[in-house]
Amino acid sequence: MPAAILSIGDELTIGQTLNTNSAWVAERLAACAVLTIEHRTVADDREAITRAVRELVARCDVLVITGGLGPTLDDLTRQALGDVLTPDEPLVCDEAAAEHVRARFARRGRPMPESNLIQAMRPHTMRFLPNPNGTAMGLAGVHGRCALFALPGPPNEMQPMFCDHVAPALPAGVGGSVIRTAAVHMLGLGESDAAERLGDLMRRDRNPMVGTTVSQSIVSARVRTEGDAAWTERELAATIAAIEQRWHPYVYGRDDVSLAAAAGALLRERSLLVTTAESCTGGLLGSMIVQVAGSSDHYVGGWVTYSNQMKIDQLGVPSATLARHGAVSPQVADAMARGALARSAGDRGGAADVALAVTGIAGPGGGSASKPVGLVCIALASRRDGEPLVRTRDFHFSGSRGEIRDRAAKCALQVLRFHLLEVDAATPLLWECAARTDSRSEVVRA
Amino acid sequence: MPAAILSIGDELTIGQTLNTNSAWVAERLAACAVLTIEHRTVADDREAITRAVRELVARCDVLVITGGLGPTLDDLTRQALGDVLTPDEPLVCDEAAAEHVRARFARRGRPMPESNLIQAMRPHTMRFLPNPNGTAMGLAGVHGRCALFALPGPPNEMQPMFCDHVAPALPAGVGGSVIRTAAVHMLGLGESDAAERLGDLMRRDRNPMVGTTVSQSIVSARVRTEGDAAWTERELAATIAAIEQRWHPYVYGRDDVSLAAAAGALLRERSLLVTTAESCTGGLLGSMIVQVAGSSDHYVGGWVTYSNQMKIDQLGVPSATLARHGAVSPQVADAMARGALARSAGDRGGAADVALAVTGIAGPGGGSASKPVGLVCIALASRRDGEPLVRTRDFHFSGSRGEIRDRAAKCALQVLRFHLLEVDAATPLLWECAARTDSRSEVVRA
Repeated sequence: MPAAILSIGDELTIGQTLNTNSAWVAERLAACAVLTIEHRTVADDREAITRAVRELVARCDVLVITGGLGPTLDDLTRQALGDVLTPDEPLVCDEAAAEHVRARFARRGRPMPESNLIQAMRPHTMRFLPNPNGTAMGLAGVHGRCALFALPGPPNEMQPMFCDHVAPALPAGVGGSVIRTAAVHMLGLGESDAAERLGDLMRRDRNPMVGTTVSQSIVSARVRTEGDAAWTERELAATIAAIEQRWHPYVYGRDDVSLAAAAGALLRERSLLVTTAESCTGGLLGSMIVQVAGSSDHYVGGWVTYSNQMKIDQLGVPSATLARHGAVSPQVADAMARGALARSAGDRGGAADVALAVTGIAGPGGGSASKPVGLVCIALASRRDGEPLVRTRDFHFSGSRGEIRDRAAKCALQVLRFHLLEVDAATPLLWECAARTDSRSEVVRA
Repeated sequence: MPAAILSIGDELTIGQTLNTNSAWVAERLAACAVLTIEHRTVADDREAITRAVRELVARCDVLVITGGLGPTLDDLTRQALGDVLTPDEPLVCDEAAAEHVRARFARRGRPMPESNLIQAMRPHTMRFLPNPNGTAMGLAGVHGRCALFALPGPPNEMQPMFCDHVAPALPAGVGGSVIRTAAVHMLGLGESDAAERLGDLMRRDRNPMVGTTVSQSIVSARVRTEGDAAWTERELAATIAAIEQRWHPYVYGRDDVSLAAAAGALLRERSLLVTTAESCTGGLLGSMIVQVAGSSDHYVGGWVTYSNQMKIDQLGVPSATLARHGAVSPQVADAMARGALARSAGDRGGAADVALAVTGIAGPGGGSASKPVGLVCIALASRRDGEPLVRTRDFHFSGSRGEIRDRAAKCALQVLRFHLLEVDAATPLLWECAARTDSRSEVVRA
C-alpha cells in the first residue's frame, strides 16, 4: 500500500525551517504497514499544492498532508483540497467547527479575529479531525482509491492527531501483510568494505531488502521486509543475524542503540567502571557516555585536561613527557590514561577498572608535517594483577573540527568495546594509523 | 528561476533518517537568488528516481539531487540520470575519475573493492564534480533548459561540493536583483515572547521579511530580503540591528556563531580563562566550548564529576554538603564551582578566572516530588578582591534526557555571557525557577 507525504510551507521550501514532520509521519506509517514512497514539499502556493495533491492521489493509496491549515492568507491547503476533490463547488462552513474555533479563543479570553473562521471551512466531501492543541482542525476524505488526511504543521498539534485519527483510519494491510524495518549499526569499516561483507544480502530483489547508509561515521544496514506477520518476524531476525555475523566485531547495536549504550551494557554486565581523560574531545566522550540513562552504574566521571598544566596537575602527566613528545603523542595519552585510572573514584569505593584517554589535533590550525590535523592518540588503561596495563592506538581522522572530535570519541568507545570483548588486538579500525612500535606496544608496567 | 531539490534514499522515505540536506541546499540556493519551489524525496528505486528527475527537469531551471552516488547496489542515481539524459546509451567509464577513486584508497593504504569503480561511471553528457572528502564524485549536466547537479548524500561531502561547484555555476539573478538572508540567534526567551518583542518587524508584507524558528532551544530570527544589491545590504543590516536591540541581552550572535563562540569571544577580549565542573551534562559543556577553534586561549579544561566520590576527591565538595542537600542542590553546585576555580590551572600560570558548575537530574529516572526530573543547578564562581564569589541559579527544563542536558549546557554558557557583560542579575532566563533565598544568594565568602 504505497503512501506519500506532502508538506506545505514557504519556510520549508526556502530552507529556513527543517522539515521534521515527513520523517516522523513516514516512520509511523511504516509501523502501520504502509510504505511511504515519496515525500514532497511545496510552497504556500495554491496552484502548486493543487498540482501536487493531484499527482500524488493518482499514484498512492494514502496521502498525508501537513501544514497550510492556519488562519492566515498564506494558508491554502483547504482551498487546494477543494480544487481537487470538489472543483465545481465552494467550500462549506461547518458550524460545529466554527464553534470549536470560537470556544478556543473564549477559553483564553482573547477576541477572535474574523479571519479565523476560514478554519471552519471544508470541501463538503471531507470531514474535520479534532485538534486538542490548536485552532486548526484536520481534514479527512477519499479521492479515487486514495485516502487523504490533512493535518496542521506544528508537530505538537500534528503528532497526536496522527495517532488518534490517521493511524486508526488506515486501511489494513493487504492479506495480513505487514512491513517491518530495522537498522544495524557499525563503526570502524568504510562503507564499501561494509557493503562487500554483506554481499548477496544487498541484492535489490531480496526480501528482506538491505541497504547501507553512513551518518556521522556510523555505517548502518537498513533492513526492510514485507509479508505476513510471522514470516517477516522470522526473516527479519535471520537477516539481522546474518549482518551482525558479517560485520563482527565492528557491529555494536540495532535501531536506537548508541555506541555508548552498547559499551555501557558490556561494562554493566561485567560490573566494571570506566573513567575518561580528554583533551581534544573536550568532554564529548564523557557526554556520549552520560547520554545513556543509568550511566552512573558504569561511569564515574573524568577530566577535561585541555591545558598542559591541567594534564600535569590533575592526571600526573610528567612535564618531561609533555616537553619531549608533545601533548599529542602516544606517550601523553598513555600517561593520561594511567593518571585517570589511578585517581578516579566510584561511589562503591575504589577506582575505575578502565580508563580511556584521548589527545589529538582537532584543527583547523595546530597541525604540522609530522603531526597533521586529525592525528588523535587514544589510550586504554586497565589492570592486570593489580598493575596498570595500557595500550595506545593512533588515528588520523579527516573532516572538520567537529567531525574529527566526534570520530575520536566514537573510536574511543569502540576501543573500549573491543577491549571488553577481548577482540584480537590486531583488528584495525578505519582511520587507524599503521602500528608503530612505540605506541601499539606490548604491556608496559608503571 | 525556479529550482527543485531531489533527495534519494530508502532511509529517508521510510523515515529512519531525517533529511537535513534539502533545507541546507534550499537556503544556499536562496542566497544565490534561486528560489526553490519543490523538495522531493524518493526511495532507492531506479524507476522512481527516473520519474522524479523527468518531472522536475520539466518544471525547473535548476535541479539539485543528493544521495544515491555511493558504490553499493542500492545507489542508483547515476543510472537514473542515464535513463533520462542518455536513454539509448550506456554509462561511460571516466578514467580520471577511476584514478581518483583508486588514489583515495591508495592514500589510506586500503585495498579498493572492485565495486567502487561504479563511481567512475557517468552518462556521457555529464561531467564529474570533484569530492575532496569522499570517493563519490558529483555529476553536472544540462537537460533541456534545466541545469542538473547530483551530489553525494553525506552532508560533510555534499556541502563543500555545493559551495565549490554548484553555487558558482548557477545562472545570475534577473535584473541585478539579489536575495540575501541572515539569521539572528537568541537563548532565554520563549518563541512567542521573542516574536512579541519583534512586533511589526514580523509583518508578512515587510521587506526584509522576518520569521522566527526554534531549534534545540535556540530562537532564531530569519531575515530574507530581495532587491538591488546596495539596498538589500543596507536594509538587511538595519533589520538585524533592530532585532538585536529588541532581543538584548538574550541575543548572542548571527548565522553560524554558536553560544560557546560568543561567550568565548568575550573571554578572549577580556583575557579571562574559564573552567568547568559538570555532573549531569557529563562533559557536554566542555565539549561545546572546545568545539570553537582556538578555545585553548580561554578554556583550561575541567572535571566531569559524575560519581559523588569524584565530587569530593576532585573538587573538594564536602561530603556533609552532599549528605545534607543531595548531589543536585545549589549548595553542591556552589561547592563544585569553588573547587574548580581553586584547582584549575592554565598554561600561563595561575588558575581560571571563572568556573561554571552544573548538577542536575537529566532523567528519565531519578526524580522526586521536591527534585523533579529536569531540575538543574548552575553555579558561576568568579573572584572579587581575590575571594571567590559564587552565584547559583536553578532551572527546571522539560524534554528528554538529551534535551535537558543540552539546555543545561547552553544555559550555563548564557549565564557566563551575562556575567561577562554584567547583565542585571535579575534578568531571568526561560526555564529558570523563581529566585530562592538560599540559592540566588548574595555574595558568599568561602
